[in-house]
Amino acid sequence: MMRTRPLKVALLGCGVVGSEVARIMATHSKDLAARIGAPVELAGVAVRRPGRVREGIAPELITTDAAALAGRGDIDVAIEVIGGIEPARTLINTAFENGAGVVTANKALLAEDGPALHEAAEKHGVDLYYEAAAAAAIPLVRPLRESLAGDKVNRVLGIVNGTTNFILDRMESTGAGYAEALEEATALGYAEADPTADVEGFDAAAKAAILAGIAFHTRVRLDDVHREGLTEVTAADIASARRMGCTVKLLAICERAADGRSVTARVHPAMIPLTHPLASVREAYNAVFVEAEAAGQLMFYGPGAGGAPTASAVLGDLVAACRNRLTGARGPGESAYAQLPVSPMGEVVTRYHLSLDVADKPGVLAQCATVFAEHGVSIDTVRQQGKEGSEEGASLVVVTHRAPDAALTATVEALRGLDTVRGVASIMRVEGE
Amino acid sequence: MMRTRPLKVALLGCGVVGSEVARIMATHSKDLAARIGAPVELAGVAVRRPGRVREGIAPELITTDAAALAGRGDIDVAIEVIGGIEPARTLINTAFENGAGVVTANKALLAEDGPALHEAAEKHGVDLYYEAAAAAAIPLVRPLRESLAGDKVNRVLGIVNGTTNFILDRMESTGAGYAEALEEATALGYAEADPTADVEGFDAAAKAAILAGIAFHTRVRLDDVHREGLTEVTAADIASARRMGCTVKLLAICERAADGRSVTARVHPAMIPLTHPLASVREAYNAVFVEAEAAGQLMFYGPGAGGAPTASAVLGDLVAACRNRLTGARGPGESAYAQLPVSPMGEVVTRYHLSLDVADKPGVLAQCATVFAEHGVSIDTVRQQGKEGSEEGASLVVVTHRAPDAALTATVEALRGLDTVRGVASIMRVEGE
Repeated sequence: MMRTRPLKVALLGCGVVGSEVARIMATHSKDLAARIGAPVELAGVAVRRPGRVREGIAPELITTDAAALAGRGDIDVAIEVIGGIEPARTLINTAFENGAGVVTANKALLAEDGPALHEAAEKHGVDLYYEAAAAAAIPLVRPLRESLAGDKVNRVLGIVNGTTNFILDRMESTGAGYAEALEEATALGYAEADPTADVEGFDAAAKAAILAGIAFHTRVRLDDVHREGLTEVTAADIASARRMGCTVKLLAICERAADGRSVTARVHPAMIPLTHPLASVREAYNAVFVEAEAAGQLMFYGPGAGGAPTASAVLGDLVAACRNRLTGARGPGESAYAQLPVSPMGEVVTRYHLSLDVADKPGVLAQCATVFAEHGVSIDTVRQQGKEGSEEGASLVVVTHRAPDAALTATVEALRGLDTVRGVASIMRVEGE
Repeated sequence: MMRTRPLKVALLGCGVVGSEVARIMATHSKDLAARIGAPVELAGVAVRRPGRVREGIAPELITTDAAALAGRGDIDVAIEVIGGIEPARTLINTAFENGAGVVTANKALLAEDGPALHEAAEKHGVDLYYEAAAAAAIPLVRPLRESLAGDKVNRVLGIVNGTTNFILDRMESTGAGYAEALEEATALGYAEADPTADVEGFDAAAKAAILAGIAFHTRVRLDDVHREGLTEVTAADIASARRMGCTVKLLAICERAADGRSVTARVHPAMIPLTHPLASVREAYNAVFVEAEAAGQLMFYGPGAGGAPTASAVLGDLVAACRNRLTGARGPGESAYAQLPVSPMGEVVTRYHLSLDVADKPGVLAQCATVFAEHGVSIDTVRQQGKEGSEEGASLVVVTHRAPDAALTATVEALRGLDTVRGVASIMRVEGE
């Protein structure tokens, strides 16, 4: 049954992920051939720095001309693991135009330009696979677009960025502040020299856009995702969370509205109960809950980043794309038929934990409670306490019932206008209850 | 793009799962059509009791002649949710012979006769999908045979039977004995009137066979799976586990041997540390760990049984089979190229917790320790304690280091031959460390 002419793979990028892809292709070539039904070989590897020694890759395969490699007519599947928007986008389109299927791990590009990429793949009759763009080796894209294809997904909620989870885990377990925990993450290689994409939530937001798009059969772009990073999370927030029986996680949350007519996607730090399975996700691990009408609540857990786990997902997609190549089939394309509107953050309904610095005099609580009531935000619990290190002030910790985000924003604005409120020390959403 | 002639589906069986499949097909027909690219309609529903009222199913679709329905030439996909070996096997083969793809939830049949079914599907050029046969809606089959197709799976370890997990959870949380917990499970509908398939581990063993086969690209039959149920687990075992910082779970464990040349598959109760994520899987939930070379450790969690979750998996497969039907493609077939031998239980290497009733006199510990040493089983910890309710005896609780199961069996036999050993109160493997 085995075809002997090998399938040809162009590897675009040979960094942490690409070098693992090349290594596994070399060491597991027999297994890959048996699973695909034909041998598969590297036809070329596009790199930026050709001088570097690359173990296991024949030097004659190395090229700095990625465009020429992607444009070769004999490539069956191109693997794009360069990342970022350009030149990745142009290279992927070049591969499509030359009849190659594409496997990519590029979350930023998919979140920015996924629909156009899907259209180009469709036009040229080739595959576009991107399991590695969601949470590395944790199967999420395939379960959402295939396993749950007969179900109705109502919510995707998870930890999809390992760097920020590592930082929050350290803040939680050692009491360290954000800066100190970031320093440790950088020293241990969990955070990049420029950690912006992770700590400001861009990486998680791109994944949220991809997952929401697949889950809701709707186009969701990065700009549609409300995004807050964790740079403002303080040791005090984490201590407050602990007092509530909660911990703080940076969550990506994609939800179908209760009436089913719209969806939302957001990334922000949130308190979740310690009893919630996401609360025990440690270090740089990722975990994602998927709630579907018939399936109920599913959870997927694993390493959400790293060279080898990302390569595992890339190679799973490579096997699928190669099998399709042999049989003339195509994998599932874009499914955006539902075209649900993506609502702004103001329409998200959730709960809040607020910490207010107030004057320590009678009537303050009543005054604040009135502001909440006027904005239709119902209070669940309130705790008044003397403020540490101050004889004059007090602190008011309020947890609300579920309310629209816009109502909460207006409430906070009005609270800030009160003479007796000296400041809003923190606002954090409470999820997973 | 949408084809207007509908794809025709034969539903073989209309019990708990089948009726959910029919309900979702009726209520979500537009979504299914959009995702498939063509409308899909029920062409007939084979039932045993035609008199029963079946909400949402047109009476003229109901038939008691399942063979005639499966044998109709116009069926695109047959869904088999009858369960058991016959008539399910004959009906599936009839469907194949008549050119229909098949989606089944039948773990018993797949574990007994999977290779023959795969061959028949292959011969007739049609699909065989069975995600629902592993753990209902929890995606396991697709992740293992597609997402991890480029990786090397070394171990699958999990809780794959909800009934037994419910029973053990109740024993753990209430201190109840097995009989009492089973009674509660039956009353609440978690256990069937005849609970044999669940409590004796047959259901879990069938799933282990299916998962091991896919994970290791090797044919694994039900007979290859070592199987012990939980009927012998006592409240005392659970109390012992607790003293060790463990809990007791019925685990399915599929492992590649350290040298990579053979595999094992087994189902038995085992102690696992309370810190292990599987320890916190409550009630009738399922959770499965998959360890792969590149991906690392992944976990999949969710409801592993029930009408709606099983229907979700069936419908995901239905969408895949229908898409293939439209494009003339086929899903992945059997992958058994590795043909690794399945080793017997005696070659499994793991740790053990033993509780011995011994005479309370000097030298007993030394005598027992000698027996362990003679069989090459190294002791990790031993605890000697006066036996409750007896002034004459004592109890010796031994936890071993890792050793082959055969060595342990021989050790226990030899211990039973000692005058000073009055009985072996319990033997349990310790996993997940």
